[in-house]
Amino acid sequence: MFDFIIKGKESRARTGILKTPHGEIQTPVFMPVGTKGTVKAMTPENLTSINTEIILANTYHLMLRPGEKLIKKMGGIHKWINWDKPILTDSGGFQIFSLKDITKLTEEGAEFKSYLDGSKHFITPEKAIKIQTDIGADIIMAFDECTHGNSSKSYAKEAIERTHRWALRCKKEHQELAKTRKKPQALFPIIQGVIYDDLRIESAKFMSDLNLPGIAIGGLSVGESKEQMYHTLEIINPYLPENKPRYLMGVGTPEDLLEAIDRGIDMFDCVLPTRLGRHGSFFDSTGRHAITNKKFARDANPPDGKCTCYTCKNFSRSYLRHLFTENEILGMHLLTLHNLHFLINLTQETRKHISKGIFRKFKKDFFKHYKIKNDKSV
Amino acid sequence: MFDFIIKGKESRARTGILKTPHGEIQTPVFMPVGTKGTVKAMTPENLTSINTEIILANTYHLMLRPGEKLIKKMGGIHKWINWDKPILTDSGGFQIFSLKDITKLTEEGAEFKSYLDGSKHFITPEKAIKIQTDIGADIIMAFDECTHGNSSKSYAKEAIERTHRWALRCKKEHQELAKTRKKPQALFPIIQGVIYDDLRIESAKFMSDLNLPGIAIGGLSVGESKEQMYHTLEIINPYLPENKPRYLMGVGTPEDLLEAIDRGIDMFDCVLPTRLGRHGSFFDSTGRHAITNKKFARDANPPDGKCTCYTCKNFSRSYLRHLFTENEILGMHLLTLHNLHFLINLTQETRKHISKGIFRKFKKDFFKHYKIKNDKSV
Repeated sequence: MFDFIIKGKESRARTGILKTPHGEIQTPVFMPVGTKGTVKAMTPENLTSINTEIILANTYHLMLRPGEKLIKKMGGIHKWINWDKPILTDSGGFQIFSLKDITKLTEEGAEFKSYLDGSKHFITPEKAIKIQTDIGADIIMAFDECTHGNSSKSYAKEAIERTHRWALRCKKEHQELAKTRKKPQALFPIIQGVIYDDLRIESAKFMSDLNLPGIAIGGLSVGESKEQMYHTLEIINPYLPENKPRYLMGVGTPEDLLEAIDRGIDMFDCVLPTRLGRHGSFFDSTGRHAITNKKFARDANPPDGKCTCYTCKNFSRSYLRHLFTENEILGMHLLTLHNLHFLINLTQETRKHISKGIFRKFKKDFFKHYKIKNDKSV
Repeated sequence: MFDFIIKGKESRARTGILKTPHGEIQTPVFMPVGTKGTVKAMTPENLTSINTEIILANTYHLMLRPGEKLIKKMGGIHKWINWDKPILTDSGGFQIFSLKDITKLTEEGAEFKSYLDGSKHFITPEKAIKIQTDIGADIIMAFDECTHGNSSKSYAKEAIERTHRWALRCKKEHQELAKTRKKPQALFPIIQGVIYDDLRIESAKFMSDLNLPGIAIGGLSVGESKEQMYHTLEIINPYLPENKPRYLMGVGTPEDLLEAIDRGIDMFDCVLPTRLGRHGSFFDSTGRHAITNKKFARDANPPDGKCTCYTCKNFSRSYLRHLFTENEILGMHLLTLHNLHFLINLTQETRKHISKGIFRKFKKDFFKHYKIKNDKSV
């Protein structure tokens, strides 16, 4: 289980297949985010219709409500949310550190205040693994200390060293719990190190040596520049295990996907397409646009004339603009569906072009038309 | 066009087929309400999946935003909202009178303040028809003065007399506009008269004599008791044209549907199933329930064990409760779908049982299990 077979390569870019207990994932892959056990405004049927292969859920949110014990009692996350394809859960580290709700940090673990009611909780690497075992995803993540892009080097060093010790504890706990679980889970460790080359390389080496079924890169797209992110991917590349999937956490935009795939990344997740969809922005081959723009009021064209999704096959910009003007749920649904389809379709195109050895040309052509927005606004 | 063929009868209850330019409607029929050109939280595909035969849209909302001229420019309502089955628009009378935004009432028409920005608008019977002609629904409604259930008799009399004169003007304007329209539209007049038997009968006679393709009963379910509503349906029944569809506006609940069908009604619309669905209430054979009830937290059963809708086939009360606790759009979507399916399925069952002459037995059995809630709360 969790074999990763590389089917094609072009320079550092790869396309492959990852085997999981709930089916195969073709890479490069974009994973829609289902924070609270639902990809916002999507049914499982909708997700399948746009070729979603794996979704993500957030341990931080689910442990606080409804609680991992309830999910376990209801037969595990797949059954409970009615999604029989692969699922990945993060460890909660990102939320705990980025929401700045952390109240105490020790070698043992982190104490934080719940975003729901301010109640205090203490999480350890072992507990993060236990919770994820109860939730029951196919891929689970080691508990890490996620540092902001402008952190000092001394703090960044302290954080990766702690994250490395925590990763060892996560691995041990995971091996212990795996003995009594029916369906296997893959544990991925997370490379940190902010934007310091030597720390990133040190972390990449350490995590690779753990010899787990995959490896993740965390702490990027959290405040540093795009150039710094791409540079980091380049310098760690030689230290990553070749035959294991590499997951760049929390990324991203169409341009980041293409640049990261070009630097050897296989897996991505980001709330951007769903969040933009709920706030009335959509992608097409020329960039990102706000549907409420007055110029769309009598525009009979679909959001993206080249797109084959349900939204683009059936609805005009004029009608979609009306739905957003009226704050109708259908508008959020339709643009979410389109945006997810756009990113998933983009990864499908990269697979095809890597297999044929013409990914670089595809990427170059894409950027001829696509205008990059350097912010995360809608 | 607009032939109404009665296929079966049991006492006053009828089942039939109404022909329209966008297909046939089987009656009794429940029409989901798409106030602003969308049945809230539903795609057209969703509506088709639960056998929706016709939907309603509100002239009042659409004339104010985006405006009927835009809809006409975009090819009419069917094309714009991507619904190629029948559509009915109301005349705006109900909203103008019930929202209490009316600022002046004359023989010519009514002046009202927009719910959007307080701007003043003047609507006449002729204008209501013109607007509905531009929107382009299959069935359009005469402009009426909708009176509250506790109105005095003298005001109720004044209102029906004005409504009758307005109905004549609507018919004339409709005949004029029909000359240049490609697809025919059916105009239905609306019987008013509050809960005064003689006024209701007078109005029923007047509207029947207009000899239009259908007839509606308005001003019920607006403050009077259920018994008063059922009584009114009984006393006007002998004065309604036999071979034309009868539409009870703004109703309703499962119990009101069955009681009204038993009193010869063929068509219904109501926001109740969609509104309840968005607020976390669902129907089953025992009544109406709030999904956020703590007892559902670990309930692995679907909302309604006897139901075949997508929601009930795929999701538990436990998961649906979580979605509502988290205010997730998916929860609103899934319960809206279920509630609409519940009412549409109920009308399908009545058709079947009327055809077999066992509708009364079906109704009696239904009420053995179904507990009526005498309020419109969620």
